[in-house]
Amino acid sequence: MSKLAVIALGGNAIIRGDERGTIQQQNNNSEDTFEHLTYLLKEGYNMVLSHGNGPQVGNILLRNDAGEEIYDIPQMPLDICVADSQGGIGYMLEKILKNVLKEAGINREIVTIVTQVVVSKDDPAFTNYTKRVGKLYDKKRADELVANKGWVFKKSPKRDDAWRRVVPSPKPIAIMNEKIINDLVNSGVIVIAVGGGGVPVYYDDEGMLRGLEAVIDKDASSSLLASNINADEFYMLTDVPYVYKNFGTPQQEILEYLTKAEIEELIKEKAFGEGNMLPKVQSALRFVENGGKKSIITDASNLENEKFGTRITLE
Amino acid sequence: MSKLAVIALGGNAIIRGDERGTIQQQNNNSEDTFEHLTYLLKEGYNMVLSHGNGPQVGNILLRNDAGEEIYDIPQMPLDICVADSQGGIGYMLEKILKNVLKEAGINREIVTIVTQVVVSKDDPAFTNYTKRVGKLYDKKRADELVANKGWVFKKSPKRDDAWRRVVPSPKPIAIMNEKIINDLVNSGVIVIAVGGGGVPVYYDDEGMLRGLEAVIDKDASSSLLASNINADEFYMLTDVPYVYKNFGTPQQEILEYLTKAEIEELIKEKAFGEGNMLPKVQSALRFVENGGKKSIITDASNLENEKFGTRITLE
Repeated sequence: MSKLAVIALGGNAIIRGDERGTIQQQNNNSEDTFEHLTYLLKEGYNMVLSHGNGPQVGNILLRNDAGEEIYDIPQMPLDICVADSQGGIGYMLEKILKNVLKEAGINREIVTIVTQVVVSKDDPAFTNYTKRVGKLYDKKRADELVANKGWVFKKSPKRDDAWRRVVPSPKPIAIMNEKIINDLVNSGVIVIAVGGGGVPVYYDDEGMLRGLEAVIDKDASSSLLASNINADEFYMLTDVPYVYKNFGTPQQEILEYLTKAEIEELIKEKAFGEGNMLPKVQSALRFVENGGKKSIITDASNLENEKFGTRITLE
Repeated sequence: MSKLAVIALGGNAIIRGDERGTIQQQNNNSEDTFEHLTYLLKEGYNMVLSHGNGPQVGNILLRNDAGEEIYDIPQMPLDICVADSQGGIGYMLEKILKNVLKEAGINREIVTIVTQVVVSKDDPAFTNYTKRVGKLYDKKRADELVANKGWVFKKSPKRDDAWRRVVPSPKPIAIMNEKIINDLVNSGVIVIAVGGGGVPVYYDDEGMLRGLEAVIDKDASSSLLASNINADEFYMLTDVPYVYKNFGTPQQEILEYLTKAEIEELIKEKAFGEGNMLPKVQSALRFVENGGKKSIITDASNLENEKFGTRITLE
């Protein structure tokens, strides 16, 4: 039986930090990433691909704002913007992976599924908005948007005169259509799913599905999906080849192997960056706690090099 | 064995002619449409849903333009914009249909597949651009866009000083992942696919998939998909309850039944509107020519009323 891997592509697998994000740049970066992925496919792995959408949905939000300003086009709520980004990014990845596999002589079907991810309406995230999205506004315009749209703002940590919208980042509790995803991957189809962490939805008191103005962490959703479809391995591809202890300090130290006990100790020591590596390490840990064999955090270009990457296991 | 129907939702099933297209309007219209569709599901039909994207992708194009103007964000090409619209509309339809089915006590899985549709690079559409998209520009700005982006423009038929971008509208020749769609619908899953006619792609001389700045007619793609998955029935839901001969003239006449021979005769007489009903009638005809049992053109609100709708059959 084939091994099953879930691969979460970080934002910079598609748009790199110093780029404007033209479609040509997005195509080229995705192609680079996928050339390294063929290694796993040649080994016969079945595969789900998930991806970030930070720069893309950021641009979609700015375009929504600009479209309202110039053409008075109604802005779409954040759930629709995330779904838009799943369509655009998913299509691009599917097409490019298809071409990369053709070059490599690998014949696999690839399908992109627009994925809703269910959160609890009682999630504590709804009383403490943490995720910054969209553009910087001045106080006057931010106040208008609070009044007109009910948005919530926080002052920019860098500028005293600039305000940025914040939205909740609730925990994923269920992946819609995970049975379909499971059946497809186990028949050998490569499935692109839970892009951008999934379109955030919840069930209201009448049991009806409702969209949400929220952002779900893509590594958390990918970890949950990986557990629910009994994946053997869960990869998070990011912009560094390893997890480090005290990253960016003189005490920086490569961590090649991490067990549950070690991670819990290091979290207590605050050894991981809160906004970036901590949630990845937590998603990796959750996967192995739920029965996954191992989770690997590395960058795409080192995927086929067994010497690189941090391996997270239960013991 | 269950009957299989492909249902193509026209633009006004989601945004009506006189509306701005807020998300609340789109939700309400979709809910109305789906309440009528439950009739077919109660009869036990399997189902593919496709949908137009005219107003939505029009807004996405305007937002792209505005985002470039105000924030210098790179515009995305039309294939990405179509894929974005498949994500956003597909998610919205899936969520609302799920709620409508729950109210109706129908338990069916629903999945949205981002769908590429392959066209031929030798299609004559590439030498005669016909589909108007995006905003009106003045001559100076249109000339700049011709020079900078290679866009093609035609003068507005209504205004002498306004130019509008035109793109090719090639014929669909293959639906990507139609085997997966086929397997899913035949296992009872409702599949949302080929939204907006599908994301236009072609195979280049090296056999690589490339995106295209084009728009594929959604009824043509839906007809092709319906034939390829051996659907029994193909419905096109639009804003009139029947096909008419000489629509909008004093000689207007309801056509309740149409055979291949009658359609060919009426096309010769130019009895159908070129921009709207003619392509629908042609898509219906192609479906029955390819072995489909019947095709029905009507509006959603009359779907469950057997007396309404034009039935197209081979003989």
